[in-house]
Amino acid sequence: MSRPRITSHDVARRAGVSRTTVSLVLSGSGRVALSPETRKRVMRAAEDLGYKPNSAARMLVSGNSETIGLVVSDPSILLVDAFIPQILYGIERANREMGFHVLVEGLGAEERPGAYDHLVESRRIDGLIVLNPRVGDEALVSLIEKGFPLVLVGSVRHKDEVSVTFTTRAAIGAAVEHVVALGHRRIGAVTFSPRGYTSRDARLAALGAAMVGHDLHLDEDAITDGNFSAESGHRAATTLLERRPDLTAVFAGNDTIAIGVLSAARALGRRVPEDLSVVGFDDLPFAPWLTPALTTIRTDGVRQGTIAAEMLFARLGHAALHPPRVRLEPELVLRRSTGPAPD
Amino acid sequence: MSRPRITSHDVARRAGVSRTTVSLVLSGSGRVALSPETRKRVMRAAEDLGYKPNSAARMLVSGNSETIGLVVSDPSILLVDAFIPQILYGIERANREMGFHVLVEGLGAEERPGAYDHLVESRRIDGLIVLNPRVGDEALVSLIEKGFPLVLVGSVRHKDEVSVTFTTRAAIGAAVEHVVALGHRRIGAVTFSPRGYTSRDARLAALGAAMVGHDLHLDEDAITDGNFSAESGHRAATTLLERRPDLTAVFAGNDTIAIGVLSAARALGRRVPEDLSVVGFDDLPFAPWLTPALTTIRTDGVRQGTIAAEMLFARLGHAALHPPRVRLEPELVLRRSTGPAPD
Repeated sequence: MSRPRITSHDVARRAGVSRTTVSLVLSGSGRVALSPETRKRVMRAAEDLGYKPNSAARMLVSGNSETIGLVVSDPSILLVDAFIPQILYGIERANREMGFHVLVEGLGAEERPGAYDHLVESRRIDGLIVLNPRVGDEALVSLIEKGFPLVLVGSVRHKDEVSVTFTTRAAIGAAVEHVVALGHRRIGAVTFSPRGYTSRDARLAALGAAMVGHDLHLDEDAITDGNFSAESGHRAATTLLERRPDLTAVFAGNDTIAIGVLSAARALGRRVPEDLSVVGFDDLPFAPWLTPALTTIRTDGVRQGTIAAEMLFARLGHAALHPPRVRLEPELVLRRSTGPAPD
Repeated sequence: MSRPRITSHDVARRAGVSRTTVSLVLSGSGRVALSPETRKRVMRAAEDLGYKPNSAARMLVSGNSETIGLVVSDPSILLVDAFIPQILYGIERANREMGFHVLVEGLGAEERPGAYDHLVESRRIDGLIVLNPRVGDEALVSLIEKGFPLVLVGSVRHKDEVSVTFTTRAAIGAAVEHVVALGHRRIGAVTFSPRGYTSRDARLAALGAAMVGHDLHLDEDAITDGNFSAESGHRAATTLLERRPDLTAVFAGNDTIAIGVLSAARALGRRVPEDLSVVGFDDLPFAPWLTPALTTIRTDGVRQGTIAAEMLFARLGHAALHPPRVRLEPELVLRRSTGPAPD
């Protein structure tokens, strides 16, 4: 790379056009009518010369950064739960295939919601994907209402949002039916987070509703809260099983929490599934290899991430449109951690 | 945000200076001598007006994008192993604290090494962190030799590299000593990857060397290769334990592989640790909560990521210098998966 830098001037000369024409063609601008012939000549000249436009200059011309922002609320969850990496992988791969870049922006728990709007104003990004958006994030609602290209993985329950979510009701209903068919009546829950996370509350509501369908009740004292990590799941399950030793089945808020529930059961001398059945959520890749293999509900984070990226590309005009809201249906996966209720 | 956009012209007028001066001050350029008084006046005017420079324009002026690139070789590992998210979190948090952005660039297994040099040339980034660099990546060596601000998490064994790595020898030596003291003589290994990954080979070499120190030998047929996932660990451990049923201790290439080793042992009716001792690597947050709690070697990915980011900031002139190569010492963590050898 000691060769002199190729500039748009060189490309213009080789193609026999002006530098402005080169910029217009290479920025992908559709605003000016240029003949297909001219476009082709410029593209070929750029390719022959190995011309790489300076992207800062190109962004000024086109307003197009070929970069999307990915906002991760509370990135410390990355440390303890492997679900976000699944989504991240789906998004990163889809962007790589499109030649786009991904700017990852963590939003610390201490930061105000919407602390990412500087990203939008700085024109570093063409669009934004927000993981686990918080209901009540006004800056986010304002971006949605201004029509900024934005896709949520999750929901803020706004009529104009573009989002990918999944329904929990049917899958949790199927899991409850499975456990009840095995003879369980006293069922508890260890959530993945404290109160206030939308999907924590949704999973508990779905569990409660499904139990009511079998004339059972999800008692308040049969619920304890985890806090994302396996360790928190262990602690919460220990509290739960000491308070309610009569429980014979526990729904874990996700698979990482389930690791802690299995560990707590073992520490208390409860065999899984002979004494206690355990159900997870997400079906992370390790779930079949836990001891015992985990019965769980598959939410497919890679697919969520991939669809979110495709929806954003569609909004940016690079891909076919999805419906503005995609709701996936998770699926119950039966393995060894659930079995007949003890007598 | 329906108010008219504040421009550098407004800031210049308020501060009583030229637009060029505003640009020079706000770009943080040290190339032109400006009085502290002038700088202060411009900063205050910008703050009063709530001026947010357009970063594309600012990048042209300063050549400073306030963004670092993070290259992740083979991002599909994100799906199955939770170590990269630890490093990613350390890097992201350090950047957030500095007001920097992180552009994540996956490098598919099929792509040529160095497929990220377009990032450097595009001037989107001020510096680069490369995770798991491949020895023999010529584009990377070329960047190192040109002095581009670059930090490796890992090593390409180049004399001018700036890198954070860890030594495996002492910690694996301590783990072998622990297992031998428990009476184990027939020790095997399930690696985390096929041949060719530098750290796979380094861990095996350290294991073999430590065993020789106790007059033991790591047999070729006592090694099988995993491929990053717990599933691959299960398969490789099954093969290993069927081929060498006499083994009483297995070193897993990392904690995720160890999940599969525990699962394979259980499927074969081998109790851990009564019949088989298992040692992991990394000490991921779930390791204490596996069944049984995992004896492992703590490599602290968050610290590796944090140090890599600090080293890069130092090279960019924003932080104190570290030595150009930082080598961390992992530590052996004893838990329940290792015990006395069976008679």
